[in-house]
Amino acid sequence: MAPELRKDPTSGTWVVVASSRSRRPSDFKITHGEQKKGVCPFCYGNEYMTPPEVFASGRTVDAPNAEGWEVRVVPNKFPALIPDHEDSINLGNRHDKLYTGIPAVGIHEVLVESPEHDSTLGSHCKSRIEDVLTAIVARFDAVKKDNRIKYLQIFKNWGLAGGASLSHTHCQLIAVPIVPKTVQNKLDYAKQYKDTTGRCLYCDILRREIETKVRIVRESRSFLAFCPYASKFPYETWFIPKNHKAAFEDISKDEIVDLAGILRNVIRTFESAFDDVPYNMVWHTSPLKGDFNQYYHWHIELLPRLTTIAGFEFGTGFYINPTIPEAAAASLRGDPEA
Amino acid sequence: MAPELRKDPTSGTWVVVASSRSRRPSDFKITHGEQKKGVCPFCYGNEYMTPPEVFASGRTVDAPNAEGWEVRVVPNKFPALIPDHEDSINLGNRHDKLYTGIPAVGIHEVLVESPEHDSTLGSHCKSRIEDVLTAIVARFDAVKKDNRIKYLQIFKNWGLAGGASLSHTHCQLIAVPIVPKTVQNKLDYAKQYKDTTGRCLYCDILRREIETKVRIVRESRSFLAFCPYASKFPYETWFIPKNHKAAFEDISKDEIVDLAGILRNVIRTFESAFDDVPYNMVWHTSPLKGDFNQYYHWHIELLPRLTTIAGFEFGTGFYINPTIPEAAAASLRGDPEA
Repeated sequence: MAPELRKDPTSGTWVVVASSRSRRPSDFKITHGEQKKGVCPFCYGNEYMTPPEVFASGRTVDAPNAEGWEVRVVPNKFPALIPDHEDSINLGNRHDKLYTGIPAVGIHEVLVESPEHDSTLGSHCKSRIEDVLTAIVARFDAVKKDNRIKYLQIFKNWGLAGGASLSHTHCQLIAVPIVPKTVQNKLDYAKQYKDTTGRCLYCDILRREIETKVRIVRESRSFLAFCPYASKFPYETWFIPKNHKAAFEDISKDEIVDLAGILRNVIRTFESAFDDVPYNMVWHTSPLKGDFNQYYHWHIELLPRLTTIAGFEFGTGFYINPTIPEAAAASLRGDPEA
Repeated sequence: MAPELRKDPTSGTWVVVASSRSRRPSDFKITHGEQKKGVCPFCYGNEYMTPPEVFASGRTVDAPNAEGWEVRVVPNKFPALIPDHEDSINLGNRHDKLYTGIPAVGIHEVLVESPEHDSTLGSHCKSRIEDVLTAIVARFDAVKKDNRIKYLQIFKNWGLAGGASLSHTHCQLIAVPIVPKTVQNKLDYAKQYKDTTGRCLYCDILRREIETKVRIVRESRSFLAFCPYASKFPYETWFIPKNHKAAFEDISKDEIVDLAGILRNVIRTFESAFDDVPYNMVWHTSPLKGDFNQYYHWHIELLPRLTTIAGFEFGTGFYINPTIPEAAAASLRGDPEA
């Protein structure tokens, strides 16, 4: 069966039911802390182990799927969503009062950040991170051409508790055929603020944080890294461009250089402050169709996974954060008394 | 500093900033799969290690905080929310256009299900589970008297990946001073369905599931256990009373006996099908003030933690479930070909 998107009628939550993956109880190994072992499909010489690449940079010769690349983007071998649904005409959409299901049309890609198996985001040189950001922009431009796709989610899972089943450092790109509820909710909050005050919510946050200083982690020419006032996770850090812009893919060349620097700097601080911290990086940007520049402002969340989301969080949507954001920022800044 | 509730202005998410807990990077041990070791505060003889109990059943003599109990409820020693805020008058509420913060007034309790350290929810005898459910109802009645409390979240975290830092089997109760967004969203969906169709959403789901049978796990006189159509997690199972009732604490004695039986039966199936599966149990019920009987219908979610919530889920609110709910239900029923 091709993957399907199902909507929970009691909450509006969408679920990708991806049946090409595990199924029986015995298919789930409860690994208690191990990532996949064996030959790594993201290392030089193993390019044949992934589906053919859709993007690569760094090769001096034109030899797709051979060694020599520095950043490589490939379709996920076990995709959650797929672009082609042979049975989608027969299957059609299910729509009754209770249950809604549509074919999970989408794209699921992996961005391998480096051929070096033991590298980390923080160990990359600065130009490598620029290449990663440039590759993401290129994929936005490509994915936008598919009219069925409404949103492109960029993220990085690091460490087993961060959801990374392969240890070789990589980002992921998942394109979905509907604007996700979490995205719409963020758009709604930003629009309401704009309608009430006439200003961009995120520009106001930027201004406040630069004024009060207490939650700043780093500041560069074009970006602010800060622990947000209502950090969901200990040491949560957001990266936000000072220049008001709704869509990540509209980032300028200068901004890419600047972002690469501040990202690398903060990630290196995390890597040295913690013993192998699992984390997620989550891009927040505009839907691919429409103009949101009036009120939205792209940003990136760095979410350290030092706490566990469990029953309380699922029931309420609240988070419990044991570290005051102001103390987290002071500690990440390296303040003497922090 | 007393714990504080902060609201994220970009999403409406509430965070409990609980500063009595960990703070510095070195306070976070990244345990890679270990629960706390040492003397267990939930075993007989160690009652002095917890704050004084607020409920106990099973003792034949009146000796609070001594051995002899079968189910015991105590305030959490490291509470996320606390009832008394000495500084709440001085602190007051923070309300400006950007940032909202209020004292985290609430209650955080632990329900120890059994004095036996190595017992599990599935290894309890049926009457023990009845005692657990009865204790929860008693705590609802007590917590309701505090007018500041708007919602009582009951949940169970099991296993390290399920968020349980102590291995001795227990449930938790967290009472909060606002109706959580997740709860309000569920109420809104149920109300809208009622307004449109004139019927209860959950009663209609029950009817459909009993008709189509494919997602049923177990059925008892008063309850249905089924894998929901849009299961967020593999083998996710909901328990729902056949009798329309909005609030869990209105459960009848007969229903408690029946629920104990079907809960025990399904949990035992999980415990034998999987090798030590981590899970969360999440109660969904009405806010403590107001009458929601017109359209809401309480239920319990059993969420096996066989997959990891990571960057994609945080960015979109989508879930990826690799197991088709119909196949999960067949397997849990023990169908020969499943």
